[in-house]
Amino acid sequence: MNKGKVILVGAGPGDPELITLKGVKYVKSADVIVYDKLTPRSVLSYAKPSCIIEYLRSDDSEIDILKKYALMGKLVVRLKNGDPYIFGRGGKICITLISDGIECEVVPGVSSITSVPAYAGIPLTFPKISDMITVISGVTEGGKLFNFQKIPDDGTLVVLMVGKRLEEISKGLLAKRGPSEEVVVIEKGTYEDQRVSIVKLKELSEIKLTSPSMLVMGNVMKLRNFLWKLS
Amino acid sequence: MNKGKVILVGAGPGDPELITLKGVKYVKSADVIVYDKLTPRSVLSYAKPSCIIEYLRSDDSEIDILKKYALMGKLVVRLKNGDPYIFGRGGKICITLISDGIECEVVPGVSSITSVPAYAGIPLTFPKISDMITVISGVTEGGKLFNFQKIPDDGTLVVLMVGKRLEEISKGLLAKRGPSEEVVVIEKGTYEDQRVSIVKLKELSEIKLTSPSMLVMGNVMKLRNFLWKLS
Repeated sequence: MNKGKVILVGAGPGDPELITLKGVKYVKSADVIVYDKLTPRSVLSYAKPSCIIEYLRSDDSEIDILKKYALMGKLVVRLKNGDPYIFGRGGKICITLISDGIECEVVPGVSSITSVPAYAGIPLTFPKISDMITVISGVTEGGKLFNFQKIPDDGTLVVLMVGKRLEEISKGLLAKRGPSEEVVVIEKGTYEDQRVSIVKLKELSEIKLTSPSMLVMGNVMKLRNFLWKLS
Repeated sequence: MNKGKVILVGAGPGDPELITLKGVKYVKSADVIVYDKLTPRSVLSYAKPSCIIEYLRSDDSEIDILKKYALMGKLVVRLKNGDPYIFGRGGKICITLISDGIECEVVPGVSSITSVPAYAGIPLTFPKISDMITVISGVTEGGKLFNFQKIPDDGTLVVLMVGKRLEEISKGLLAKRGPSEEVVVIEKGTYEDQRVSIVKLKELSEIKLTSPSMLVMGNVMKLRNFLWKLS
């Protein structure tokens, strides 16, 4: 029997129109689609009628499910929020599958890193304002807090996966950046119900976040006064 | 007469299938499309028959051309390589148009930052290997060299717009990173004729580059041994 194949498709940051043509092409031809709570749902509508659509309840079972269907000879599409290779499990999954002899391909997607700030009116770079972007995840593997000493003093800073541990993240940021520096907090970026708040760093820990959120710091955020609601 | 509108559409990094559905939607409805030498050409095929398609010869005339058609009441799509807000003139153009009273919208695209390394088998982050990405442009505004003292010692480093000034860029990198550290050089990333080379930093300046190129440094590049030709 022919072995199947797994394709990790970046489904974009939330707005279902931000998936790529290549992503849609694979969704249309998939025998199996595996998605999770972060997947923009309307993307599933491109699946062919015979396609098996499976909701992933926990990350733990991800490899097993993908492997099971691939070994049945299926073309398996795993829809990943944003881009599969950016602060997710995509790289790990791909390497594990390949080392198990299963072909795995990655289709890059529009990453939340760039698109979520754009939908909030913030370009990450701008002449004379910022020519460097640093991207980190507030919480890294095994639930460990990021070592904020590593971030540069300068340029645009994007902090992903800011959620329940906002207080610790605020503390980490305060060790490197000024308490009066402003922070943009974007919840559910690019979704229709996206929420954008601006606070001083010292007040960041008081915010209540209920959904996937991102922080942006740096002088580029001032451009928002010109670009917001217009882009 | 109704005023027109300008939409800056991220056309993706090169592979024409990496444009988004939203991007294609606007290309299809555009009255005017403005593109340049970096635009994946086949994207133009989605234009309606009556669409005016204009090739932009120099950056200098960009605002004037976009404005001219918008003031004629046209829906103008400006196709931008990668993502319009990342190290390009997108933010500046948008602000200028808005301050001139012309509506301007940005459609994020798949940025070369993430997708070009992916097509070369390199995830920018990976558990236990890298949890921080720094992105800079080798040459910044007005042709000035980037101040390499600003880059962090740690994590993944992506250097865009590496071309004719490779020698100076190599020197700048050598001031912060070890001479034996390996560098991935990607030319024409995600295009069919993409070229990937790996050199030691001390040998970087000897490489001959003929097309738009990007450097990636950091431990993630070792993952390429497992992922290359398979993703």
